[in-house]
Amino acid sequence: MRDVAIIGVGQVPVGEHWDMGLRQLALGAIRAALQDARLDHVDALVVGNALGGNLSGQNHLGALIADFAGLSGVEAARVEAADASGGMALRQGYLLVASGLAETVLVVGVEKATDRTGPERDTGLATTLDADYEATPGATPAALAGLLMRRYMHEHGVALEQLEPFSINAHANGALNANAMYRNKLRPGAFAKAPVVADPVNLFDSAPEGDGAAAVVLTSAARALDLAPRPVRISGSAAATDTLALHNRADLLFLRAANLAAGRAYEAAGIAPGDLHLAELHDSFTVLAALQLEAIGFARRGEGWKPAVEGVIGRGGKLPISTFGGLKARGNPLGATGVYQAVEVALQLRGEAGDNQVSGARLGLALNLGGLGGTAVAHVLERME
Amino acid sequence: MRDVAIIGVGQVPVGEHWDMGLRQLALGAIRAALQDARLDHVDALVVGNALGGNLSGQNHLGALIADFAGLSGVEAARVEAADASGGMALRQGYLLVASGLAETVLVVGVEKATDRTGPERDTGLATTLDADYEATPGATPAALAGLLMRRYMHEHGVALEQLEPFSINAHANGALNANAMYRNKLRPGAFAKAPVVADPVNLFDSAPEGDGAAAVVLTSAARALDLAPRPVRISGSAAATDTLALHNRADLLFLRAANLAAGRAYEAAGIAPGDLHLAELHDSFTVLAALQLEAIGFARRGEGWKPAVEGVIGRGGKLPISTFGGLKARGNPLGATGVYQAVEVALQLRGEAGDNQVSGARLGLALNLGGLGGTAVAHVLERME
Repeated sequence: MRDVAIIGVGQVPVGEHWDMGLRQLALGAIRAALQDARLDHVDALVVGNALGGNLSGQNHLGALIADFAGLSGVEAARVEAADASGGMALRQGYLLVASGLAETVLVVGVEKATDRTGPERDTGLATTLDADYEATPGATPAALAGLLMRRYMHEHGVALEQLEPFSINAHANGALNANAMYRNKLRPGAFAKAPVVADPVNLFDSAPEGDGAAAVVLTSAARALDLAPRPVRISGSAAATDTLALHNRADLLFLRAANLAAGRAYEAAGIAPGDLHLAELHDSFTVLAALQLEAIGFARRGEGWKPAVEGVIGRGGKLPISTFGGLKARGNPLGATGVYQAVEVALQLRGEAGDNQVSGARLGLALNLGGLGGTAVAHVLERME
Repeated sequence: MRDVAIIGVGQVPVGEHWDMGLRQLALGAIRAALQDARLDHVDALVVGNALGGNLSGQNHLGALIADFAGLSGVEAARVEAADASGGMALRQGYLLVASGLAETVLVVGVEKATDRTGPERDTGLATTLDADYEATPGATPAALAGLLMRRYMHEHGVALEQLEPFSINAHANGALNANAMYRNKLRPGAFAKAPVVADPVNLFDSAPEGDGAAAVVLTSAARALDLAPRPVRISGSAAATDTLALHNRADLLFLRAANLAAGRAYEAAGIAPGDLHLAELHDSFTVLAALQLEAIGFARRGEGWKPAVEGVIGRGGKLPISTFGGLKARGNPLGATGVYQAVEVALQLRGEAGDNQVSGARLGLALNLGGLGGTAVAHVLERME
């Protein structure tokens, strides 16, 4: 098995791109990543996408995007694991290079969330849940996040305002990121007054779906040093699952898949949680950010909200998270999210994060969840020189 | 990179399973494959599925099926490439073992085609085409296959009855297969009188979509000999793409992706087309079977129909195809089809094909296409002892 490195990154701003479809969004990120890697050809393409079939009537995205990007002929496939599709696509690209079957692989995460609106979009989003036991009875991702958040607050005695700092941090960082969907800062106290989405989940608590695409170019670590000035090694790559339906979980307030995936990635990288300089977590809801800090070994059970309250997650803190705005402010373009996370961590490690730079970052985690943690994909990235 | 082997196979009959959803179908195949491999645990699950999101409102199948099969916690993801999803899932499982990142991997292809009927199903099927330039203007897979078939007949002077033997062969073999959707034989001459689906494609020319699931268990070839009495080596695994939209192809009558994928798989296996003892081709339409025989190096351009007319593709011929009925008679459960093909080739190489046995089969090809050849995945399988 070979070591694998990221030698190119690209992204388009997350937002409502009324003038672009799936192929155009993907192409924007692919062009930027290939240019960054100074390459014009790859051996394979992996596409992470969650809802193309449901929201745009477009499946079979591997062949479609390969052709549109001028790569027709290359191996290409789509990987889907709800909003962990991007992370899983990165992992499949990693496998292609690690196995020696491909020298250079392009991974693109792409989502077009605005082809449908209202109930049609909600129905599409609900296909990421258990169709028979959650979606058909009427649950939505936000409704289930509401149940989870209510239980967390009740079980651990956490007040709504103690979750607010996650959102304030995300928006503070998003405000500096030209690719973020929302660049407004959040005023302390605004959280509790925000319109309710699914009590107690409110508007400032849940991440917006958006259109977007992000891409990375992978090659062997041995080759990377010759090709790129600042390659980033994938020191650990792992995925795991939990029950899809929330009601089947033995322990509702423990993200088992995230715990397993992060643990395996740490082990592969030979690191401990305390070694990390930053983490891009899957903060689609604030309660998930708190639960992830517990699952990845950075907070004790029931205390995942404390790092936020204590300023630990800020850019100057012990473990900065959502450094470019996270899902909350950069936006959650579902199947693209995991690749945005990898791009953002790579930019931090390259020292090219601009206003969003975490000083001295050499080791970072990208943790991508599907739905409410049914799937988790963890990647530990490391600056090479 | 490690050699990889199939040590367990399982399938459920293809058909209209009104009493089973995606998870139940998948479980049937998974249980059979694990039992065949004499294992009760694996390190990872890969799910091939084309239209769960569109036809059953169910995406995120990796986590769902892992949990339902009692494998919760393992890495799991869905791979999608239209009806090449199963072949691509097999390839991803292959990568997991080849890279050394997993010891034992379960690959399941599953499709539930009967949750929707009529126009709703047609709309779902059309998501495998180019949504903007083919599906939205009204094309369906069958309509495009009609264009392709008409052009093939015109260009090469082929009569309708010269394509009939593909269908007769498939049905003759399907009649002996307890897992086939259609077990009726086809009378010579019936083809030309069949109801027209999309002129000149008729009912006996096009494969039926069906519900189904098939699974294989993979491990390293080194370990396989200790675990299974008759392991089958994956000697070559490759995938390639062509333009998704038919009108973008420089050469309409050449399946470029199939040619590239088969060529790469031959090269990896160190074989020539003439070495094969059988081939499971993607005969969703008879014209595709003819074009695949040309693409994989078994017939000259324009002569892919001849092996059928000359009896070469029968079980006693030089290159038997559709030995269990192919897509035409076994049925085409889209995202499961590629895994059915692998199961069938493996059974042939193990000498366990029963009434469908190809005598002395030691080397076989499974060629899985997405749509009309936008994606192709080729696997060369070889009997180990």
